[in-house]
Amino acid sequence: MNTKEHPKAIIVIFGATGDLAKRKLFPSIYRLVQNNKIAKDFAVVGVARRSWTNEEFRSNVKESIQASMKTHPELDEFASHFHYHPFDVTNPSSYLELNGMLTDLDGIYHTSGNRIFYLAMAPEFFGTIALNLKKEGLTATDGWSRLVIEKPFGHDLPSARKLNHEIREAFTEDQIYRIDHYLGKEMVQNIEVIRFANAIFEPLWNNRYISNIQITSSEVLGVEDRGRYYENSGALRDMVQNHMLQMVALLAMEPPIKLTTDEIRSEKVKVLRALRPLAEDEVAENFIRGQYDLGTVSEKTLPSYRDENNVDELSMTETYVAGKLLIDNFRWAGVPIYIRTGKRMSVKSTKIVVQFKDIPMNLYYNRKETMHPNLLVIHIQPDEGVTLQLNAQKLGDGTYGKPIPLNHCNNSIDGINTPEAYEKLIYDCMRGDATNFTHWDEVALSWSYVDPISKAWEHEKAELAKYPSGSMGPKEADQLLEKDGAQWWPISDHFE
Amino acid sequence: MNTKEHPKAIIVIFGATGDLAKRKLFPSIYRLVQNNKIAKDFAVVGVARRSWTNEEFRSNVKESIQASMKTHPELDEFASHFHYHPFDVTNPSSYLELNGMLTDLDGIYHTSGNRIFYLAMAPEFFGTIALNLKKEGLTATDGWSRLVIEKPFGHDLPSARKLNHEIREAFTEDQIYRIDHYLGKEMVQNIEVIRFANAIFEPLWNNRYISNIQITSSEVLGVEDRGRYYENSGALRDMVQNHMLQMVALLAMEPPIKLTTDEIRSEKVKVLRALRPLAEDEVAENFIRGQYDLGTVSEKTLPSYRDENNVDELSMTETYVAGKLLIDNFRWAGVPIYIRTGKRMSVKSTKIVVQFKDIPMNLYYNRKETMHPNLLVIHIQPDEGVTLQLNAQKLGDGTYGKPIPLNHCNNSIDGINTPEAYEKLIYDCMRGDATNFTHWDEVALSWSYVDPISKAWEHEKAELAKYPSGSMGPKEADQLLEKDGAQWWPISDHFE
Repeated sequence: MNTKEHPKAIIVIFGATGDLAKRKLFPSIYRLVQNNKIAKDFAVVGVARRSWTNEEFRSNVKESIQASMKTHPELDEFASHFHYHPFDVTNPSSYLELNGMLTDLDGIYHTSGNRIFYLAMAPEFFGTIALNLKKEGLTATDGWSRLVIEKPFGHDLPSARKLNHEIREAFTEDQIYRIDHYLGKEMVQNIEVIRFANAIFEPLWNNRYISNIQITSSEVLGVEDRGRYYENSGALRDMVQNHMLQMVALLAMEPPIKLTTDEIRSEKVKVLRALRPLAEDEVAENFIRGQYDLGTVSEKTLPSYRDENNVDELSMTETYVAGKLLIDNFRWAGVPIYIRTGKRMSVKSTKIVVQFKDIPMNLYYNRKETMHPNLLVIHIQPDEGVTLQLNAQKLGDGTYGKPIPLNHCNNSIDGINTPEAYEKLIYDCMRGDATNFTHWDEVALSWSYVDPISKAWEHEKAELAKYPSGSMGPKEADQLLEKDGAQWWPISDHFE
Repeated sequence: MNTKEHPKAIIVIFGATGDLAKRKLFPSIYRLVQNNKIAKDFAVVGVARRSWTNEEFRSNVKESIQASMKTHPELDEFASHFHYHPFDVTNPSSYLELNGMLTDLDGIYHTSGNRIFYLAMAPEFFGTIALNLKKEGLTATDGWSRLVIEKPFGHDLPSARKLNHEIREAFTEDQIYRIDHYLGKEMVQNIEVIRFANAIFEPLWNNRYISNIQITSSEVLGVEDRGRYYENSGALRDMVQNHMLQMVALLAMEPPIKLTTDEIRSEKVKVLRALRPLAEDEVAENFIRGQYDLGTVSEKTLPSYRDENNVDELSMTETYVAGKLLIDNFRWAGVPIYIRTGKRMSVKSTKIVVQFKDIPMNLYYNRKETMHPNLLVIHIQPDEGVTLQLNAQKLGDGTYGKPIPLNHCNNSIDGINTPEAYEKLIYDCMRGDATNFTHWDEVALSWSYVDPISKAWEHEKAELAKYPSGSMGPKEADQLLEKDGAQWWPISDHFE
């Protein structure tokens, strides 16, 4: 059996009693085992402050699987690979005990000393944990050790640098897997394939043929019970700095020499370096911050953000961001990339719309209908697929120019479930493929881009635009595009 | 009411007792009236040798409508606009009587002297009829007169020239509407729109990005009861000289300055002039002729062409043609256009496949699956629609390069019937729009291209390749493409 394809490791989850572990990690590991992706003799060690027993932990694991899947064969066998260890992250003896436990489990499961340390918890202890793992010898095995870190990675460039510095004391950049779960999504991974495996797109993929690119990631939910966290974060840090800029990089990068992790990251980094930086006083004309207000959704009145639990009643935290980015290189000079993301919007959807330039001469100008530009739509979630909107003669009545969508929908056609982002990412990490994780250079460049925007907002250099819950954002976001003669293309929640 | 949009005329059908009139013309006129396209006070005069009464003619018309449509409201009223006149094409008094009748009907139906003379009959009398129509004064009314001519227009360039000369004695080129019913098909008309109303295709539509173009028009039926006609024709004259070369012209023409009849025809003519002519001794390496042999279709054994009724048992008539055309201009130099058409093939289908060149560098070369080229498929019949075949990451298992079809199918999505080709063409003729009819220059150039091929075959300079009934043609047609490193893309009868 190929250990590259059926990798073996003990996965140590810090924060194993938490929400992320239960909602995402346990089901993903279950599917990896069921689908024969990882070795059957895997082991998971959960660590957290609570004094759970193995049995309590395992029944939590089983609940998680039962809640997320209709059928769940071999569940008891699966859960028996899970072990719990009560833990104090600041106490060295906790690490020593854990190390002993891992060494024992290595013997039982033949995991060859391979260890993934998955930090599924609040970031304040990332540095402490990393350092102690090294100091107490947990990373000094015959196998490999990898550190997986959940977002947020800092809240600005200085804090991210500090955090990175602490982690790098114990782990090399090669050993660090910074999760951006958008990079695990099927259609985000497909951006590269759509661009580089199709001869027809690359010749068009530049400022001669593309008018603008629009990236929307909208949520219907509000801040829910995460008010305390969100008040210190906001949409810019929560969504733009990571997910949105990662999608920009994938859409705009030059073709890599090879599809290796290093080559792809190197091209992405070049895009981030080419982003035109905004001075604080340029932010207001290029970025809109919004906050959701009272609104009616399905005849139900929903509260404003400021009325949510644990939210300051005068909060200036943005729940919505729209922005215009420019990439100063030969390929993209003059092509705006518009991004928008927000909570409590009218539809849950992540979509990329590539708007091509108008035809050089409209032969159909004297017809009644105006010509629509060609659009390539990459549907990321909840739909997954590709639509190319073309103009074609309308049927029958002889009028011209009715746009037709050429669709391919992954969900509907293949009838199988796309693997969850976390499932792919855990598998990648176990195989040692870091392509779909964020390199430190990317994190740093993203923060450099985003920091002046946060600063301008902190310094009240831009309005906070209110938008009704259940809308697609404030009118200022529409005006941002109207200034350029553009418009947001409608984002329906399903294939047109 | 706009007479341009609701044109009025008496339609005189020569050969009104024939098959074409019954199968195509009557139902098309019925739909035009029902859909309020042409004036309600239209009139049709059927002429033919048989001594039918108006009543016999009208019941024939009603049968035709009943056979071709599920519902047929106002059928008696419709049929009452049909009048019959027994006719001898060589007898001047027939024309005089007809003229009197048309003058009377003009008074009744207020058709302002507008007359369409539709020659739905064998071509040997085209010249006689045209001449007599003029001589006996039938074209000298206050309105307009137009002549509609069905194929075949000659059987080679000299005979076509002679026929054209006779007709032009009586009608100007402007008045002559040469039917090529492929030009009435929705998706043939859409070739122009796909090319010129979409900004993404024109930059790709040349020898830098297109590898080859394949046009297939396959029939399942054999020669049926048309053996006598077909023995004097064959697939080259019956399909290639007209339909196939018209599609080549539409696919390859430069963007016209305007979408006027003259500008479009002028661009099509330029393509036909740029076709690389074949000397007789070059035919064998560029064109394959085939003839269907015994074969089994749906467990039924079907006879060879030579065993069909009214077919010579040593017949050398081709029921299949495959060919490689080259267009010697800047846009198309080096891009082969492959055509094939035949009877008794495995599927009834007309499709155009534009094969784009391979990506300049296959980043995925070390993966197991080979990369497929991008294909733009224009489905002409029986399906109508567009497919763009792209490469995208295969779901779930991480392998790359599985092609996905982006589909738009007119039939299925809009749920309405596309108007029949004849319906559009009669309507165009009544409005005086000759765009979708063949200009003499196109006819002449097509025969110039095709004549050396017929000659080479008459002079036995190429094999007659047999192919089993129910196949996609002889193996020689596959070899034709294999020489160039190409292959015929599969033509399924439905969207993949």
